[in-house]
Amino acid sequence: MAYTIKILNLAKTIRAQKGELLADKILESGIDLSLYCQKKAVCGKCFVEILEGYLPPLEEIEDFLIQKNRKSQKYRLACRYKITGDLAIHIPPESLLQKTLILKTGIKMPLAIDPFIKKYFVELNKPELDHPHSLLDVWRKHFRKKNLNVPVNLLRTIPGSLKNNRFKVTAVLYDDNEILAVEPGDTTERSFGLAVDLGTTTLVVELIDLNTGKSIDTATENNSQMKYGMDIVSRISFAYQTSDNLKKLQAAILKILSLMIKTILDRNQVSQEYIYEIVFAGNTAMNHLLLGIPVDTLAISPFHAVFHRLPEFTANELGLRLNPNSKAYVVPNIKSFVGGDISAGLQATDLANRKGNYLFVDLGTNGEIVLKTENKFVATSTAAGPAFEGMNIGSGMLALPGAIYKAEKRNRLILHTIGKEKPQGICGTGLIDLIALFLNEGKITPSGKIDGNKGIIRVTEKISLSQQDIREIQLAVAAVKTGIRMICEKYRIEKDDLDKVFIAGAFGNYLNTKNAMRIGLLPDIDSAKIVYVGNSSLAGARAILLSKLARKKTESLIKKVHYISLASDPRFQQYFIDSLNLGDGNNPR
Amino acid sequence: MAYTIKILNLAKTIRAQKGELLADKILESGIDLSLYCQKKAVCGKCFVEILEGYLPPLEEIEDFLIQKNRKSQKYRLACRYKITGDLAIHIPPESLLQKTLILKTGIKMPLAIDPFIKKYFVELNKPELDHPHSLLDVWRKHFRKKNLNVPVNLLRTIPGSLKNNRFKVTAVLYDDNEILAVEPGDTTERSFGLAVDLGTTTLVVELIDLNTGKSIDTATENNSQMKYGMDIVSRISFAYQTSDNLKKLQAAILKILSLMIKTILDRNQVSQEYIYEIVFAGNTAMNHLLLGIPVDTLAISPFHAVFHRLPEFTANELGLRLNPNSKAYVVPNIKSFVGGDISAGLQATDLANRKGNYLFVDLGTNGEIVLKTENKFVATSTAAGPAFEGMNIGSGMLALPGAIYKAEKRNRLILHTIGKEKPQGICGTGLIDLIALFLNEGKITPSGKIDGNKGIIRVTEKISLSQQDIREIQLAVAAVKTGIRMICEKYRIEKDDLDKVFIAGAFGNYLNTKNAMRIGLLPDIDSAKIVYVGNSSLAGARAILLSKLARKKTESLIKKVHYISLASDPRFQQYFIDSLNLGDGNNPR
Repeated sequence: MAYTIKILNLAKTIRAQKGELLADKILESGIDLSLYCQKKAVCGKCFVEILEGYLPPLEEIEDFLIQKNRKSQKYRLACRYKITGDLAIHIPPESLLQKTLILKTGIKMPLAIDPFIKKYFVELNKPELDHPHSLLDVWRKHFRKKNLNVPVNLLRTIPGSLKNNRFKVTAVLYDDNEILAVEPGDTTERSFGLAVDLGTTTLVVELIDLNTGKSIDTATENNSQMKYGMDIVSRISFAYQTSDNLKKLQAAILKILSLMIKTILDRNQVSQEYIYEIVFAGNTAMNHLLLGIPVDTLAISPFHAVFHRLPEFTANELGLRLNPNSKAYVVPNIKSFVGGDISAGLQATDLANRKGNYLFVDLGTNGEIVLKTENKFVATSTAAGPAFEGMNIGSGMLALPGAIYKAEKRNRLILHTIGKEKPQGICGTGLIDLIALFLNEGKITPSGKIDGNKGIIRVTEKISLSQQDIREIQLAVAAVKTGIRMICEKYRIEKDDLDKVFIAGAFGNYLNTKNAMRIGLLPDIDSAKIVYVGNSSLAGARAILLSKLARKKTESLIKKVHYISLASDPRFQQYFIDSLNLGDGNNPR
Repeated sequence: MAYTIKILNLAKTIRAQKGELLADKILESGIDLSLYCQKKAVCGKCFVEILEGYLPPLEEIEDFLIQKNRKSQKYRLACRYKITGDLAIHIPPESLLQKTLILKTGIKMPLAIDPFIKKYFVELNKPELDHPHSLLDVWRKHFRKKNLNVPVNLLRTIPGSLKNNRFKVTAVLYDDNEILAVEPGDTTERSFGLAVDLGTTTLVVELIDLNTGKSIDTATENNSQMKYGMDIVSRISFAYQTSDNLKKLQAAILKILSLMIKTILDRNQVSQEYIYEIVFAGNTAMNHLLLGIPVDTLAISPFHAVFHRLPEFTANELGLRLNPNSKAYVVPNIKSFVGGDISAGLQATDLANRKGNYLFVDLGTNGEIVLKTENKFVATSTAAGPAFEGMNIGSGMLALPGAIYKAEKRNRLILHTIGKEKPQGICGTGLIDLIALFLNEGKITPSGKIDGNKGIIRVTEKISLSQQDIREIQLAVAAVKTGIRMICEKYRIEKDDLDKVFIAGAFGNYLNTKNAMRIGLLPDIDSAKIVYVGNSSLAGARAILLSKLARKKTESLIKKVHYISLASDPRFQQYFIDSLNLGDGNNPR
């Protein structure tokens, strides 16, 4: 016999048979009920208010789990409620699956929060004389996981924790399969992770609340490996001179990361013990250097990596001071020159699931270009150099306060600086704007020569662009332009076939796409099709931290992407030379 | 169409269809062909000689894998050979599954060797410009394991190893799922593990060849924790006084084990890097102390453990100097007072698979008694104290050279010592013999009193038994006798219902079962039914080291065994008092 369940606050009515589980019926109706613990009645997140119909007595476990949210005596767990008649219910917002926006700019795509790290406040059954289960078996029974594992170090402290807290503690689980920590009382609200964008030039560490998906704070620093080589190629050369050098590079990155983590935790008064996972997205070489793995093979033909995809390991192995049993995960690389930062970017933009033709361009020190067509997924990379990050430019700087990030001409040259501070230098987007303006004004010729014989263009009293600076930008632009042209030509995609061009990179929010087209960096298309997605490497790391599904999808995506090498294509040299001209003449037609 | 395959050396003829795999047909016929690598053509152990019929060209991989054993040009891998016609073959003994005897005494049961640790000599495909696979992916492809894992520390050295050895190396795999080591050249013959009997009084470390199952050597030492408490109860009390004491107990056992391991490796010229796994069998408390896990809960009601079954972990966590990535495994405990040593013993005697009624009695410091009937598996434990190991006895000693292990009366008292050395003391079996003899002679009354008023019986000029010694033995015997009586009574097994009584323990090979019956330690039954199985804890650890199946079976067995507590049974006190009388009067009838 079919009953009717009215979900009053969502104006929805569903049908159910006797004995069916309320949680199942709500889910089937398309409502995203939170099933954090997979209907095992250990998280208490799926409570609903029974307004009309049979209200069963509150079970002990329900009483325990709902207590924190007890706004109504009529709350019951949907995963424990078997239907016996008509119902009218209310689903409070706390019982709905939490979602978060992954990209901060560009595309709005909510991600369902379902991290590997989950915290549960539990009241365990004490062993009894008739059932003297081991403490580990008590945990296994509670979570209904026969092979639930606990690191040996934790087994040393668990007996004391349980005793002192009368068997009411919070357990931190990894993949509902391993207990990473046991904490006194209810600490479920304090659950954090770190997403790291491991850039060649810039490092970003983001502190993320694993319950809400909220980004709490970010810290940005120059990659301290730069003292051993500005670009990744020189660092690779340095690394393979001696094994000591490799260790130096690893030590440098770990030191600055430790400092950034300490800063961000102190600033937000989050204790290191509440950080349970760290996810790194970096290019292939950076990922190797982070782990202290030799990079020789990346430098010499056939240019292969030591690893692309690694299972999670303990952050302890890197000496990072987080929770002692916290996990570390490296977003898998696609190929030697298309790393985990790009895998993360493809995940953040959901490129694998899009219909149509898309270009994904990451403008970092390396320019990586991914073309997604109906049936192909191809990637290539091109050495742009650090100019777009403001490096190797006389007056260049990172996108930090004081950087000229935008320039426009009305009557006079108007400069915008980050934080509205006094101009201290020019960051990537500012450079693009200035070159476009000077090109329009004829201060720079299409071949990149500074008009006149001063060989310098003043921007402010202290800030200027030299001929050498223009050359750096020309080379960077040409590298990207050649890459886009060749990959599109190869798969016969003309510029107007493109549904969208996603631009990722360290530009901040300020890329003027018209100016980027003007200098030839981007193909000259309807500017509405160009979507700036920001630091998609960091966003992808965040997604992979917050969602098991995102991680799984990324691991399967990397197998599908085909890599093509530009340098081995005989047309490359000619196209590159053609592209040195500032202007859009050599982009895909 | 069916073809005929004659296996000439085994005088067997089998039938096969076109296209079927030779390896499958050989296996189906009941011949134990070695399929070490599960027919993946990476181990080269299933080669057969094709004497008549189609001889395919030797594949490159076959050529590589068979080279070491190349006695015939007609060798082919059975896992690569598809049947196309009639055949006559020869299966060399090297291609048959290796087996070993697990128990050194008592029952002969061959165990098929299939350890978690496997070594493969490989020639890897080098990454190529067209297929620049990462080195990790090269390994994954070679072993056809998508999720094959490699510890990060190994990823640091693999690139160099492969380069220096032209991609011809030996890989050490754990469960065909994780690479533990990569070694230059072909080191497949050097594959070792350690089995450890973690006794309360005595420790035994055994060095085992993982290819042949052969026991290479053993080292025996007193458990150095004895300085903190002779029996396990006093060690538990010591441990929970302060957490420092727990650390002292762990440090003591790890120190002596390290020393024993070093000794045994040096003596046999085996390098520590070729030791890939260590398996521990000990009682529940010893297992906890080994890992430094608090034992408080074992001492106070409801007497529960912190863990029974743990997955393998790295031996590094214990600071043992073996291969850096070697694994450690603790044979799971059954209950708080029936530990992994008994699980190991049940595995070694294959008790779970026996039809009929069996008693398994382990005579260590604790006496553990397991009764297996047609439909029950029950265990209990009884505190025998260390008398059977020669401890707490004035002239007692471990079963080491110089120990009187056997005594008999012809015209005069004849004493046999281990190593035929001058008598230095009496070990467990010697004590049993002497008490039985003195009981027969009337030098000791059935109540345990020494006749006359000297209160001492001289055995040799320097060796004697005091009244106190007799009392110790009486208590130990009574504990075991009471346990056997109660468990048999409870499940209505009379002594003649027993098909076998397996006696395990540190007695060496010398238990005189008639004398053991005389003093009442064992029920008075047909002595052919009493089987001394020796150190079955060590034997089980060896089986669990050598066979994945044995490990799996043990993990499932422990769930089936029901524990009964003697002390909580109201009859216990009376039975115990009854049993203090030396003699068989109170054993099961």
